[in-house]
Amino acid sequence: MRPSHRQPDELRAVSLERAVVKYAEGSCFVKFGDTHVLVTATLEDRLPPWLKGQARGWVTAEYGMLPRATSERTRRESSAGKQSGRTVEIQRLIGRSLRAVVDLEALGERQITVDCDVIQADGGTRTASITGAWVALHDCLAWMKARDMLRGEVLRDHVAAVSCGVHNGLAVLDLDYAEDSQADTDANFVLTGNGGIVEIQGTAEREPFSEAQFLSLLALARKGVGRLVELQKMAVM
Amino acid sequence: MRPSHRQPDELRAVSLERAVVKYAEGSCFVKFGDTHVLVTATLEDRLPPWLKGQARGWVTAEYGMLPRATSERTRRESSAGKQSGRTVEIQRLIGRSLRAVVDLEALGERQITVDCDVIQADGGTRTASITGAWVALHDCLAWMKARDMLRGEVLRDHVAAVSCGVHNGLAVLDLDYAEDSQADTDANFVLTGNGGIVEIQGTAEREPFSEAQFLSLLALARKGVGRLVELQKMAVM
Amino acid sequence: MRPSHRQPDELRAVSLERAVVKYAEGSCFVKFGDTHVLVTATLEDRLPPWLKGQARGWVTAEYGMLPRATSERTRRESSAGKQSGRTVEIQRLIGRSLRAVVDLEALGERQITVDCDVIQADGGTRTASITGAWVALHDCLAWMKARDMLRGEVLRDHVAAVSCGVHNGLAVLDLDYAEDSQADTDANFVLTGNGGIVEIQGTAEREPFSEAQFLSLLALARKGVGRLVELQKMAVM
Amino acid sequence: MRPSHRQPDELRAVSLERAVVKYAEGSCFVKFGDTHVLVTATLEDRLPPWLKGQARGWVTAEYGMLPRATSERTRRESSAGKQSGRTVEIQRLIGRSLRAVVDLEALGERQITVDCDVIQADGGTRTASITGAWVALHDCLAWMKARDMLRGEVLRDHVAAVSCGVHNGLAVLDLDYAEDSQADTDANFVLTGNGGIVEIQGTAEREPFSEAQFLSLLALARKGVGRLVELQKMAVM
Amino acid sequence: MRPSHRQPDELRAVSLERAVVKYAEGSCFVKFGDTHVLVTATLEDRLPPWLKGQARGWVTAEYGMLPRATSERTRRESSAGKQSGRTVEIQRLIGRSLRAVVDLEALGERQITVDCDVIQADGGTRTASITGAWVALHDCLAWMKARDMLRGEVLRDHVAAVSCGVHNGLAVLDLDYAEDSQADTDANFVLTGNGGIVEIQGTAEREPFSEAQFLSLLALARKGVGRLVELQKMAVM
Amino acid sequence: MRPSHRQPDELRAVSLERAVVKYAEGSCFVKFGDTHVLVTATLEDRLPPWLKGQARGWVTAEYGMLPRATSERTRRESSAGKQSGRTVEIQRLIGRSLRAVVDLEALGERQITVDCDVIQADGGTRTASITGAWVALHDCLAWMKARDMLRGEVLRDHVAAVSCGVHNGLAVLDLDYAEDSQADTDANFVLTGNGGIVEIQGTAEREPFSEAQFLSLLALARKGVGRLVELQKMAVM
Repeated sequence: MRPSHRQPDELRAVSLERAVVKYAEGSCFVKFGDTHVLVTATLEDRLPPWLKGQARGWVTAEYGMLPRATSERTRRESSAGKQSGRTVEIQRLIGRSLRAVVDLEALGERQITVDCDVIQADGGTRTASITGAWVALHDCLAWMKARDMLRGEVLRDHVAAVSCGVHNGLAVLDLDYAEDSQADTDANFVLTGNGGIVEIQGTAEREPFSEAQFLSLLALARKGVGRLVELQKMAVM
Repeated sequence: MRPSHRQPDELRAVSLERAVVKYAEGSCFVKFGDTHVLVTATLEDRLPPWLKGQARGWVTAEYGMLPRATSERTRRESSAGKQSGRTVEIQRLIGRSLRAVVDLEALGERQITVDCDVIQADGGTRTASITGAWVALHDCLAWMKARDMLRGEVLRDHVAAVSCGVHNGLAVLDLDYAEDSQADTDANFVLTGNGGIVEIQGTAEREPFSEAQFLSLLALARKGVGRLVELQKMAVM
Repeated sequence: MRPSHRQPDELRAVSLERAVVKYAEGSCFVKFGDTHVLVTATLEDRLPPWLKGQARGWVTAEYGMLPRATSERTRRESSAGKQSGRTVEIQRLIGRSLRAVVDLEALGERQITVDCDVIQADGGTRTASITGAWVALHDCLAWMKARDMLRGEVLRDHVAAVSCGVHNGLAVLDLDYAEDSQADTDANFVLTGNGGIVEIQGTAEREPFSEAQFLSLLALARKGVGRLVELQKMAVM
Repeated sequence: MRPSHRQPDELRAVSLERAVVKYAEGSCFVKFGDTHVLVTATLEDRLPPWLKGQARGWVTAEYGMLPRATSERTRRESSAGKQSGRTVEIQRLIGRSLRAVVDLEALGERQITVDCDVIQADGGTRTASITGAWVALHDCLAWMKARDMLRGEVLRDHVAAVSCGVHNGLAVLDLDYAEDSQADTDANFVLTGNGGIVEIQGTAEREPFSEAQFLSLLALARKGVGRLVELQKMAVM
Repeated sequence: MRPSHRQPDELRAVSLERAVVKYAEGSCFVKFGDTHVLVTATLEDRLPPWLKGQARGWVTAEYGMLPRATSERTRRESSAGKQSGRTVEIQRLIGRSLRAVVDLEALGERQITVDCDVIQADGGTRTASITGAWVALHDCLAWMKARDMLRGEVLRDHVAAVSCGVHNGLAVLDLDYAEDSQADTDANFVLTGNGGIVEIQGTAEREPFSEAQFLSLLALARKGVGRLVELQKMAVM
Repeated sequence: MRPSHRQPDELRAVSLERAVVKYAEGSCFVKFGDTHVLVTATLEDRLPPWLKGQARGWVTAEYGMLPRATSERTRRESSAGKQSGRTVEIQRLIGRSLRAVVDLEALGERQITVDCDVIQADGGTRTASITGAWVALHDCLAWMKARDMLRGEVLRDHVAAVSCGVHNGLAVLDLDYAEDSQADTDANFVLTGNGGIVEIQGTAEREPFSEAQFLSLLALARKGVGRLVELQKMAVM
């Protein structure tokens, strides 16, 4: 039995609310159960120096967590003077995931920065961030289309992410914090709408895992991401 | 005429929503029109080193702004590696304002940290933060009372804040960004429920101002804070 | 009775010595009793990036304290790796105060940086800094005039500052450290030669204060700044 | 055809030289072709604060690269003032990989820090680091055993790592820089001597990849790690 | 001919003024011509961690320069966020020089921190700092003796410093900035009252120098330090 | 008797191995006994901003130490967030020493950066670095000559360095760590092939030293550097 009484292949209640802040070109407030992330997409007419003059754009991401998003208050990274290793890892993952479904040439010489700020954390903040970031990015691109700023299609597919793990010997989908902190194996899967794999990160927390276990997690992830992509489609309809 | 068509002594629509996040001992989502701040109050059993063994507690505040809270994206302070001068000034002001109505001896040897994170900024983020922080602090203390952690009354009065300024020659209450960026004089007033003055910060943005002008701003502030304190009372009822 | 045996409306002995260092375009060694600040004004042909091409200049300030300016040695900020919140607050205040009496268009596309370094601190370092900074700025502008670098008058008025507070129930002028550390209310007033108010910062250290108390402090400040402006006039004669 | 003329399932020339520096309790100079990493293992009688008093030890890793390990000189991180996101990601991965085969209770309340410093980089620095780190860790534990500092077996299995990728449509093992910079898919596999999976990181560099492709990479990795584990066994014989 | 019209073996006008600030246990305002340094000595009852429990004390130094001590304004190190390499080198030199004449056992488990802050710089700030630091240290120790805090003699000798260089082919004593910036060879000598050598730093700025040249600089330095020690003796009489 | 049983004027076994890494334009692995330093020389087509447009180049150096180069592990400077004072001092010394034998005009508007990374430290890392850096620099310049990038001779002489000290009353050459940590006097000499003095740094560790002692150290240094220059000549033959 899962602590949340969910079925092994059952996502938490997911919601994807659009246009939640006033200024951003695209935004999404994404909830995976008690994990709540505010995502904004900002269009800027500048590029990282190493990309200038190459006739293509860039999509990057930053990630943060409010100090009391967690059960115990965590120190504000601006006060600590630097981003933690975990923060850096996650924001690099979000950026890579989005770029996997973006045609950077079609975007033109511009940068879109996606900010994912965790308001409340109950496990799976990176997967919720990626899933919501696709919606914010979609709306930012829609804002650009409405202003005739884009010639072709920039977004080539959906992308969404979900975690899976082995908890009490059982392969389960979309771990919350209670499960995550006790899982034997923890894996994050980033998949496209067409079922392509963008990123796989699997870690043995206690014991090494087998290929069979890993494939059962991947099967769960396919099911979960399939459902998340349906929710993205409904959200932007 | 004000850009927002408000009367000179009219606040923006203010709301104070309590218990908006799951983990914090107290929290408040405060809106002053389009300025939205999430405030949490965290109780911790530790004290700053210089306060140890003095049989009293401490209330402190931190302030932050999401990158896209503003019209143009601002750089994340964790990425810049330090807090700006403006951030430091504001969080010191919030902390002083709250301590002015707190009995630190009655609190006991504990620290309450109030985090004010601006989700959307349209002027007056510091005054909204102080006004909402009182509610979050109140609820944190209520949480402690419910657990028999407090002997006496810690909160001695309400405290709330509002900005006033001279805009197009007219003294106006609760400036939004459109007014603030063009005001001749800008002042922030932190007042208690009993009408005591906790903090006054008045700055001539262009021309020095007169005592008479200043007193007219103070009169407006009294009216505005009176209303804010009523709203605090309704919120915690 | 004040610890220093001064009358309630009596300034400490104030001196404003000009041209105290060899290289700076303007300089002033200002003493408010035992508070000693060395102020220099530096002219530079560069501007902050956000001000370029706007046909006006900038006046900014930096503030520092020698480690043993205080009763106990304070850590050198260069060794700590950052400026404290207090330092940042004070240098922003000094800059704003000076700009309130400067015609930035008349200055032309140049920057004057005013450095205020506290050699000895006995309360009121920010008010002494502002008062001395006006003299250093005046002399820097005179240096420019002598070289035909200015067309019109840059300095539109005097500006000076003084602290007032309620100490043992008595409103007193120009607090030294002994008073400041025990004051109930502490306020800093920055006023112009014409009596205009540039900046008011009033803080209740213990109990909120009333409007009447505040006005009595403002009256004291007017008297004190009047005298400081006289001393500035004598200094630059 | 691979740029190096290797067979698809052929490792580069691998060597694992032990005891290469004078002071460290364990050390290994590992070469995967032109990728050269110096690994040291340091025993210390201190623990991270959050682990104290739990009757178990810790194994952690740090990673660095000499400035001219690369084709173009990269800036020294000590001079830049911080570690890059890439550095932080890699050192976290090395630490997790080693801990997966270590019995932290058997280690006792001590910390072993494994430093991996890249002398020359030609792709696969993280996989070479993990493979060499196992040898350095083994020797550090042997040093402890020789001094009767350990009661039981700390090292539960071998651990080694290799990268695989799809290059010109072909699944290949142990990518060098020429292949890595042009690969469609890049994956790192950390496996144990018993074939258990410790960590999988797969990233689509250009196009999402399929489950079949991923499984072919995993099969190659099994082959490669099997060979690396044989080499580790010979090295410590 | 020297730019200053001094004889080759002539020091600049030197003055050593004691007790120049109110709080420090010892202080000295030292002038070597237009080079002016304020030195304070602070007694503290704490030690660096690595020295605890060894029944001896420590003398350390910090060095700073006011931004406009120089012909062009230099950036404040607290604002840059770190001390320059030059600052670190100089403060290490000052500390070593003082410790060479201090009996650390006789000092007891306390630290004296000597702060050297350059008010005006015209060459030779490090040599002026060391020479003045001896006076401030002397007075700090006198302050301790007057309070019966010391059993034996802590200060074993005088120490003073002077620069010498080859300028236009001529060996000269106590270079000012005009000479220093054009010297072929630049050397700093730290000598004791008894003529012992504490520190020699000689650098060829353009061409390597010969042993004969070096010995002529050392002879000049002996003469100069002899005179500086006389001035120290008169100062503390 | 020296701990190493060497004669007072005997160097440790010195080796200078060239072309030890694949990418650098010049490199040298230098050993002074158990002190091992990897030196690389990197040619770059950029200059420090203050040197642009002056028709000459620049040679600079950076220095680092692997964490376990020492008997006890030292903290990685990239993790500490800054370079220590010792590191900064040493890299400035290496750069100055090399520039003393380089014709910067003949180099043209380019920068050569010499990186000295200590793999193992047993005293004398700075002198070994300078001695090996000359070889790496020589080979970088040879690389440029082979590509017709240089018109004239850039390298005007050899430069090498050695430490000397007074240990147990005896003047000895090339101190290892066992001697260095107990020496009364410690001096580093940087000399050219022609016997010119580039840099002298002498420090009294315990008692001030006499001129006679100093001259005996210089005589030893001449002998040692003479031998090091012979070894450099053989190395680049």
